[in-house]
Amino acid sequence: MPANGTGFVLWLTGLSGAGKSTLSELIAADLRERDVPVELLDGDEMREFLTKGLGFSREDRDTNVMRIGYVAKLLAQHGVVSIVAAISPYRDTRDRVRAMANRFVEVHVDCALEHVEARDVKGLYAKARRGEIEQFTGISDPYEPPESPEVRVDSGVQSVDESLAAIMGWLEAEQLVPSRSTA
Amino acid sequence: MPANGTGFVLWLTGLSGAGKSTLSELIAADLRERDVPVELLDGDEMREFLTKGLGFSREDRDTNVMRIGYVAKLLAQHGVVSIVAAISPYRDTRDRVRAMANRFVEVHVDCALEHVEARDVKGLYAKARRGEIEQFTGISDPYEPPESPEVRVDSGVQSVDESLAAIMGWLEAEQLVPSRSTA
Repeated sequence: MPANGTGFVLWLTGLSGAGKSTLSELIAADLRERDVPVELLDGDEMREFLTKGLGFSREDRDTNVMRIGYVAKLLAQHGVVSIVAAISPYRDTRDRVRAMANRFVEVHVDCALEHVEARDVKGLYAKARRGEIEQFTGISDPYEPPESPEVRVDSGVQSVDESLAAIMGWLEAEQLVPSRSTA
Repeated sequence: MPANGTGFVLWLTGLSGAGKSTLSELIAADLRERDVPVELLDGDEMREFLTKGLGFSREDRDTNVMRIGYVAKLLAQHGVVSIVAAISPYRDTRDRVRAMANRFVEVHVDCALEHVEARDVKGLYAKARRGEIEQFTGISDPYEPPESPEVRVDSGVQSVDESLAAIMGWLEAEQLVPSRSTA
């Protein structure tokens, strides 16, 4: 497989607040510097055009994940690295997206609940604990961690730079992206 | 603008039964023979992953069109010719997709109602006339034809080959696709 020219889906799964969006943006910026075509499937745009009206039932979450996955795999088929940051709590659903894509790299952005809850950047965990948000992943809704993700980072113990380096290092080692020195 | 390497959205609008899908498939096959990256946003896949559950109200139709348009423009940004075949009855909504895309080529697959209704390949017009299908475009729901589409073909008076030649000829003349002789 060539180091470049082959698209794939890079799927970041993990709890709300684990740092998926931040990492995604850094990965996207890094790949662009290497002249790799990249598309970050941005949550806000997703909500506006793709997943408007979907809630947090198992069915709606699955529809959401499959829909984003479908777009990601379409782009990947055309040589784009499609980066998706989505809680995507259900293992089975992530595996269905994996089966749909030609190449699927699952990154578990792990973080102990106590850490994301202590940070609680958006105040969502506090609201979920007070019952003001229902079906909140990790509190009142399940999260099924990947059993064998391609990459696992832990934002509770690693810095963002360390997590980024781990992901980029894995992609380089697998020759999915050109290394910076030869780019 | 280079003859190749630049994606765009090729949007076929028209009544049900006007021949949008048939033409789309022929255009896609033709472009693939010219080594142009192409994605045909297939109605069935769209329904399965992108537009499940949407009905035929103005709002649902708009959501449908905007959602397909969003995916089409994402692909086009990465050099793909995204071919969409969708009734897309509302002028304003098509223009919103046009505004979203970098380059948008609107093809009006025109056909007089009497012709599509006489053919009625899927028997839908008969059902719509009997009231068994509500909100059927052209019968009980509006169709707003494009005022100045890039290309207009008329499947009521042209053969499929003639329509195909008209579309491909326009794309070649605009240097949006390489001509067959130099491909």
